[in-house]
Parts: sequence; structure tokens; C-alpha cells
Amino acid sequence: MLFVPELIEKKKRGGRLTGEEIRRLIQGCTAGRIPDYQLAALLMAIYFQGLDEEETTQLTLAMAQSGEMVDLSGIEGVTVDKHSSGGIADTTTLVLLPLVAAGGGKMAKMSGRGLGHTGGTIDKLEAIPGFRTQLGKEEFIAAVNEVGAAITGQSEHLVPADKKLYALRDVTATVDSLPLIASSIMSKKIAGGAEKILLDVKFGRGAFMKDYDQALELGRLMVDIGHRAGREVVAYVTAMDQPLGLAIGNSIEIIEVSETLQGRGHRDLEELCLEFGAELLVLAGVEADRGRAREGLAEKLRSGGAAAKMEEIIARQEGDPAVIDDCSLLPRAKFQQEITAAADGYIKDIDALRLGRTALKLGAGRQTKEDRIDLAVGIRLRGKIGDYFQRGEPVATVLANDQEKLKWAAGEVEAALKLTPERVERPRVIYARITRAGVEEMA
Amino acid sequence: MLFVPELIEKKKRGGRLTGEEIRRLIQGCTAGRIPDYQLAALLMAIYFQGLDEEETTQLTLAMAQSGEMVDLSGIEGVTVDKHSSGGIADTTTLVLLPLVAAGGGKMAKMSGRGLGHTGGTIDKLEAIPGFRTQLGKEEFIAAVNEVGAAITGQSEHLVPADKKLYALRDVTATVDSLPLIASSIMSKKIAGGAEKILLDVKFGRGAFMKDYDQALELGRLMVDIGHRAGREVVAYVTAMDQPLGLAIGNSIEIIEVSETLQGRGHRDLEELCLEFGAELLVLAGVEADRGRAREGLAEKLRSGGAAAKMEEIIARQEGDPAVIDDCSLLPRAKFQQEITAAADGYIKDIDALRLGRTALKLGAGRQTKEDRIDLAVGIRLRGKIGDYFQRGEPVATVLANDQEKLKWAAGEVEAALKLTPERVERPRVIYARITRAGVEEMA
Repeated sequence: MLFVPELIEKKKRGGRLTGEEIRRLIQGCTAGRIPDYQLAALLMAIYFQGLDEEETTQLTLAMAQSGEMVDLSGIEGVTVDKHSSGGIADTTTLVLLPLVAAGGGKMAKMSGRGLGHTGGTIDKLEAIPGFRTQLGKEEFIAAVNEVGAAITGQSEHLVPADKKLYALRDVTATVDSLPLIASSIMSKKIAGGAEKILLDVKFGRGAFMKDYDQALELGRLMVDIGHRAGREVVAYVTAMDQPLGLAIGNSIEIIEVSETLQGRGHRDLEELCLEFGAELLVLAGVEADRGRAREGLAEKLRSGGAAAKMEEIIARQEGDPAVIDDCSLLPRAKFQQEITAAADGYIKDIDALRLGRTALKLGAGRQTKEDRIDLAVGIRLRGKIGDYFQRGEPVATVLANDQEKLKWAAGEVEAALKLTPERVERPRVIYARITRAGVEEMA
Repeated sequence: MLFVPELIEKKKRGGRLTGEEIRRLIQGCTAGRIPDYQLAALLMAIYFQGLDEEETTQLTLAMAQSGEMVDLSGIEGVTVDKHSSGGIADTTTLVLLPLVAAGGGKMAKMSGRGLGHTGGTIDKLEAIPGFRTQLGKEEFIAAVNEVGAAITGQSEHLVPADKKLYALRDVTATVDSLPLIASSIMSKKIAGGAEKILLDVKFGRGAFMKDYDQALELGRLMVDIGHRAGREVVAYVTAMDQPLGLAIGNSIEIIEVSETLQGRGHRDLEELCLEFGAELLVLAGVEADRGRAREGLAEKLRSGGAAAKMEEIIARQEGDPAVIDDCSLLPRAKFQQEITAAADGYIKDIDALRLGRTALKLGAGRQTKEDRIDLAVGIRLRGKIGDYFQRGEPVATVLANDQEKLKWAAGEVEAALKLTPERVERPRVIYARITRAGVEEMA
């Protein structure tokens, strides 16, 4: 018998749990042998006393092994994975899939559905007519081998211990613990089978982590756990105070992906995709130098190679590749309203969280797991912080299928945007890059 | 709707819970509306962040009001109560009942059954043939008015919130939190109806609190809560490294009570009873001066007045008062074994916890709520730390109803007693007295 109160007591006093103790706790949790009230007390003790890197690694591995472990060995070459801690107007994953494949890499992407104000990649893809978001294991691997990239919804059987603990953390105010966040993310990555992983740790108002130093610490911790678990991990710390791209919604994010793949995307989104794409190609061993890799990928955006690869991926998963050139094939909202500049000026601030929540309430996301998404609705910005608008020029457009929601959302978007007559600097996106060798902070 | 995770978060961040928030939490807990996992997380957050004196008072009152509130207004004069945090060979309550009544005070004592290595007062009384330990409310009050003292088992309906929280604390490693301990004790005292309360906070190896400073802090906190809740409370901090008296067991503790009431008890036990008795008479307003009150009570022990009052109490509750003079009327063990001194020397140490656990396993206490107590068994010491024994002299006697247990217990008692050729000081019992005016530490 595992004497759980003794382990809670040990952690409460600041002691270290052994690998064996952690494995037995996670097995007991997965099997439903440990009552929720003991797990809740343990989670709160961990919140206060922390877990060291070895404990966090053991927890990560025990959780990864609590369910199905995906085997990607059928894929030829090194598979790379990219994970983001959740952002607004962030279509990086969908741009990277064809971009990395066009550059010679292999992306086997398993992705979740969205809950809350950040959208899920799988949800966005459902805007593409015919696109199959659930592939069998064999066809998933075959598609990656053939096209270079494929994407599918995450297995239900992945990391059941994390599902259980996360649900409990959510109702016991124990979500915001770095080792618990790190082990939750890394257990899913490890169970997902990728050998090389790029993590995008976002910080700021619209992100889960509000604080730069905490995001840096989380990134550092996950790189370390990855190393201890035999995975190469590179983490980036990026800003999420304003939205990353210009589109918040499902159909309109697919349009933003198409534009970006054709070299017409917003500079911040393109910047992140080129940096991450180059990093992934170096991690995969396809390229030796990040600068060179980046030049090659920029060329794929200009030449149409990346867009053509996206059409291939869509066609391989039975979607209509014509959406890349013809956005009228995507679901469209009945109503729209422009938000215009009240006076000449520069955008000083865009509250990403407020926009994310507004899009969510318009129907672009799920407030509960049971909610159905409205693929057509959302918010499209015409610029970001630092951009100049003349009085009366449209700054953003709200798309809705309901007149009342349209009106309400227009007010929210107006409140989320702040203009000023004085010139405003454009904020940077990438703040730090973390590898095993250390932290490289961008000036 | 009470949003419990928000309250957990507030406490986790070190915030103060309001009286209203605490009342709603306790009502939700009592009604079973708040899941155990949220209560467990909150208890662990309280362990780390504490509760201030106002929060602890609000928690105490909310718990007291979660069930039946005993009304002692039918008793003429001021009723006093005495509570001990649990000791070994501690018959103070049973000596105080007749002693305070003989001195003119009113003791309406509600007491619990024992669980673990410290015996319950109600259990001990069941050794007296015929004694009724469960009185109806009316007859309880009538007995106190007539005789000056009565004792009954605690109502099942007292402080249900504490029962629930205590059971949860026990399995989530959240027992050792001073505000939770203080509110648990004080909620029961307040629901029990006494106006003036004497608390004996024990510390040391055989006590719940291992550390003097913590016991002092607990006493100070309970005096303060009592004051905020409109009750006058005096707390004593007393030692529990070695047993208080000489007898550990049920029948033999009744014998020790008789001997003490006749002025033949162990000096430490008598000392505590006289101090506490005097304090209680002053609290009750029966005496003005503790020194004078103490002299009066010492006289009651010498004159036989206290013993006669005990006979009255026993007779009033239908027990056989002859047990006070004739201990052969009490249950007696079949087997006994003497532990003798291996060499001339002074007792240097007596491990109270080890003796308590040995008596428990002999059958003198309950390991689980369902266990039946063996009233006859136990351990009787012949001396305490500082007492001198010649080689071969009996130092202790083990009483058992089972030969194997007798043999095992004799070994345990031998191991719990340490003798030394060098002279050993007798340790004091009372360390501090705490009132609203402050802490008086004994030199």
C-alpha cells in the first residue's frame, strides 16, 4: 500500500520525492486508487514547495507513460514538433507545417482542440471544406512520409494522468505552478513521440504566463526536462501582449495562413515562422546553419513553394486546396462592422486578452467542451502597435452571424484598441532563445 | 454560487478571508456542497499561509455554529470547563470535577471517548460498576445544580464541520496547523456552552505538540480567540515528556483518582489539580485569589471532602461509590508482571509516548473507533524521573489479560524506562500560564 499522506507530508516539509514514489503516485492517480482530496493536497503542497528538476522529469516521464506512447519510428528521417503555450492570432503551426516540409523537414503534428480564448489548430482546419482532422496512425505516418507534413487530432488515450491532474488543478487553484505546467506540457510532447521539440513560451497579457521572468524560467525548465528525458528541446520566449497576427477566428486565420505562405503575411507572424522554421530544420539535421536555413525558407514564401506544399497537405487530407487562392470557399459571416480611427494617430496598445475573449463570445471558440464553434466569426485587425491611421480609416473589422453580438463586439474591439497622436515604437516579438547551452536574450 | 477556487486562490496568495467568506465555506462544507478536493487544497493553502486571529475566530465561530449549540443557562452560577490537548496518565479532569465542586464551583463536563494513545475520560468512568456516562440534557443540568458537577458523553451533533474537516486533515497531512488546531478545539468548547474555560496545552514527546514554543503559541492563540468570541480563557502550557501520574489504563486510573482525592496521589498530578482547581474557582468568581483558593482545595484533599464529593457524583450518575475506598470492585487483570531495576539508580527518562502506545496495544485504548476497550489492563509506574530505586526493586507493573501481550509489554516498558547511577533533577510540570494580560512563564 502506498501511504499517500506520508508523501504529502514529505513534500509539505520541503522533501524530495523519489522517482519510485512519483511513479506510484501517478499510477495510483491514473488507476483511480488515490482519492482526489489527497491529490489536491499534494498539488497545493507542490505549489508551495516546488519540485526540483529531477522530480519534475520523473513526474513528466511517469505521466507520459500513464497512457498510449505514440511511435513515430515509421517516419523516415528525424521528426520535429513545435508547441506553443497558447496565443491569440497565432497561426504559426499552420504556416510551419508546409514551410518546414518545403524546406525538407518532417512535421508530424498532433494537435488539440481549443478551450478558452486561444483557438485550437484542429478547429481552424475544420474551416477548410472536406479536410479530415482525424487520421488513423498508419495513414498519418504515410502522409508525413509522402508529403513531408501531416496534422491530426490528438489521441484520446494520450497522458490520462495529466488529464486527471489538470482537471483537478483547474478547480483547486493549483494551475500556476512552474513544475506542474512544465511536466504537463512535456509529458504530452514525450508521449507524442517527437525526438526534437521547439517550444514557444508566450508571455504577456494574452498569454498564460503574464511575466517574462516566469516564462524564461518555464522555458529553461522544459529544455532541461527534455534533456534529462533524452529529447532535444529549444525554447523561445515570445511576446503576447498584442495579437501575433491580424486575424482572430477560424476561417479568417486560414486566410491569414494563405497570405503568409504567399509572402503577404504580417511581419511579426512571418518573422516567427522563419525563425522557428529555420530552428526546426537545424534540429532535424536538414540544415547546418540557422541563418542559411532562414534564407531558404524566405525564398519558399516568395517563390510559392510553401503555398504549393500547403495545397499538397490539404489535398492529402481530403480538403479542398483551392481555399489557398480563393477564400470565398471558406465559411463567411453574415454581418460585419468596421471600427474606424476617431482621430489621426498611431496604435499605442491592443489588448490581446480582451480581443481573444470577444472572439470567444462571438462563437469563434469554446467556453465549455460541449460548445460548437462558429467558423465564420471573428475579428480582423488592419494593423498592430506602431501603425498609423488617419481619422475615419478602418482599424479593425468584426465578423458575426448575429446583429446583437456584432454590436457588442464592436464596442469591445473599440475599447481594446488605443490610439495616440505621438509616434509609437513597434514592439519586438522574440525575447529569448533557450538551449542546453544557455539563454540567449534578444536585445 | 460560492466560487471556491477563488477563495483558495486568495488564501494561496496570502490574502485574508472575510467572515462572510468563511461562514459560507463552512456552511458549504457542512452541507456537503463543497467537494473534498477543494477543501483539501484550501486546508493545505492555510497550512502554508496561515490564518490571522480574526480569520481563526471567524472559523471557530462558524464551526461552532455548524451544529447543536449546548445551552447551559439552566445551571445556577458560572459554569467552568477544562480541556486538555491530551496526555498520558492524565486524570486531572476526574480529580477536578469533585475538587472544584467541593470548593463551591460548577463543573458541567462533556467529554469524548479516546482514540489513539491518550485515553478518554468517558472510557475511564466505564470501569466504575453502574456508572451512566450518557445523561439527557435535563438530567445533566439537574445533576450539576444538585451535586456541583456532572459528566456526560459529548453529543453526536456537536460541531459537524469540525468532524468533517478533521477527518480530511487526518488523511491529507494538514493536521499540524496552529490556526486549524486552535479553531478545532475552541469550536467544540464554544458549542459546549461554557463561559469560562481553562485549557491545558501539553507539549513534549507524549503530547500532540512536540515543541514548547508551538504550544505557547497555540495557547496564546486560543486565549485570544476565546476573548474575541466573548469567552474568558486561561491556558496553561504543561510538560508531557514523561507520564503525568503513575497509572496508564482505565481501572487503574480510577484508582489513581481515588488516591489523589484522598491526598495520596503523585505530587505532579496533585500540583496540576490544585493549580487548575484554584484557577477555575477564580474564573467562576467563587474565589478572589488563586493562592487562597489553592489552600482551600488542598484542605479538601486532606479532609476527605473531595473524595466524599466524588462519591456523591458517582452515586448521582448511578455508579457504585464504594469503588473510592475499595478498588477490588473495579475490573482486574488476570496477569501481572513487575519490571525491576537492573542496578541501583535514579530514573533518568520515561518515554510517555512509548508507554501510551504499549497500553493501547494491551487493550487499554482504541486503535480504531470500533475497538472495544479492556478496562482492566495497563501499566502502573512506581516512580517518575528523579526517583531512586535499589537493584531488584519494582519500578513498574504491567497488567494484562493475555500472557503473550504481557511478555511483549514488559519488554516495551523496560525499554521506555532509563535508570542512571547519577542523581537526576525532578522536571517541573507547569511551564507557562497565559491570560489576556499576557504570558507568565514559570522559572
